[in-house]
Amino acid sequence: MKKVAVLLSGCGVFDGAEVNEAVLTLLHLTKQGAAYQCFAPDVEQMHTINHLKGEESGDKRNVLEEAARIARGEVKPLSELDASEFDALMLPGGFGVAKNFCDFAVNGAEMTVNEQVLKVGKAFVDAEKPAGYMCIAPVLLPHIYGSGVKVTVGNDQEVAGAINTMGGEHVDCGVRDIVVDDKHKLVTTPAYMLADNLADAEEGIRKLVEKVLYMAA
Amino acid sequence: MKKVAVLLSGCGVFDGAEVNEAVLTLLHLTKQGAAYQCFAPDVEQMHTINHLKGEESGDKRNVLEEAARIARGEVKPLSELDASEFDALMLPGGFGVAKNFCDFAVNGAEMTVNEQVLKVGKAFVDAEKPAGYMCIAPVLLPHIYGSGVKVTVGNDQEVAGAINTMGGEHVDCGVRDIVVDDKHKLVTTPAYMLADNLADAEEGIRKLVEKVLYMAA
Repeated sequence: MKKVAVLLSGCGVFDGAEVNEAVLTLLHLTKQGAAYQCFAPDVEQMHTINHLKGEESGDKRNVLEEAARIARGEVKPLSELDASEFDALMLPGGFGVAKNFCDFAVNGAEMTVNEQVLKVGKAFVDAEKPAGYMCIAPVLLPHIYGSGVKVTVGNDQEVAGAINTMGGEHVDCGVRDIVVDDKHKLVTTPAYMLADNLADAEEGIRKLVEKVLYMAA
Repeated sequence: MKKVAVLLSGCGVFDGAEVNEAVLTLLHLTKQGAAYQCFAPDVEQMHTINHLKGEESGDKRNVLEEAARIARGEVKPLSELDASEFDALMLPGGFGVAKNFCDFAVNGAEMTVNEQVLKVGKAFVDAEKPAGYMCIAPVLLPHIYGSGVKVTVGNDQEVAGAINTMGGEHVDCGVRDIVVDDKHKLVTTPAYMLADNLADAEEGIRKLVEKVLYMAA
């Protein structure tokens, strides 16, 4: 049974992991016969957004503790992730990726990546193990894979431009499809960068899980 | 297109709505061609549980604001739910149902139901519109439908006994199956009262959505 490490950036699209993408990832890993373990960094969120009003609420929350809401408590600190114990890596999106895993939400193409996230991402590259990044998460990839990495976030020209500025090669892609960089064993899908319903997001994520597990063969 | 009202009790299995059940409900409503609107009561949660440690954290959170994390902001106050605008009602589970929708978690069979939740549930009964309750949510049903209502929470004898004490008729049921009370146009499924993986929970919820939408025809 293939084992996949899933990185969560909190719980909630505006300050954490996109909840639907996270659940759909875990659902399709299960349905396609893989085991998984969720991880999240034990750090404070950049901020907390009241998801009803779309405004900062002022309270402080921890990324690992909030990620545990999606994972029913079954989440480990990212510092404990050993790439040698897993066959593949997956990152659902959400603003948490752009706020807690890196500072893309603030600094755009001048962004830096959280040290633990960078280390873990690179460990899977070095081990030549496949990975799947969803939604906004591909902004991390030029930093993790280096120049020329082929990725998609759908068709958002601002984010695509930033990815190209950082050395990536953005490819436009429909919501129900994936972009595959065979050389880097890397799969990306737009998910909620484009999706306006769960069924569309699911189809792209289903294909991403299928392709990454195939590459992990 | 059939329109379904979905009631969320927060965001997180231990103090709110079970995240996976909520997403699977919305996924299958979408895949089966129904529209939906999420609702939640604008009240403070009974308490907040640190989902990593399983302990009370002490901070105060609002059920409606937390539910918005699952619904990507698209959730309305339960006070605005008008049953005449919908074809059916659905309640995912999670401890939020037993803590924020009623006080079953504290008082067991002596429980009382939140006034708004009771009113909304009864409005669908009065309109003879179907409903689907998942996981622990069937503890509400003897209060909403009255004596003799046929429901399942799986095979938990303590919860089943409490339901029977309150006047319901509990029926044991497997995780991938549903119990149908035709007389009351009511469908229940155990979901995470029994599930130990997402695929099992999904199958029961898929069947529940299918049956409720069929009854709404």
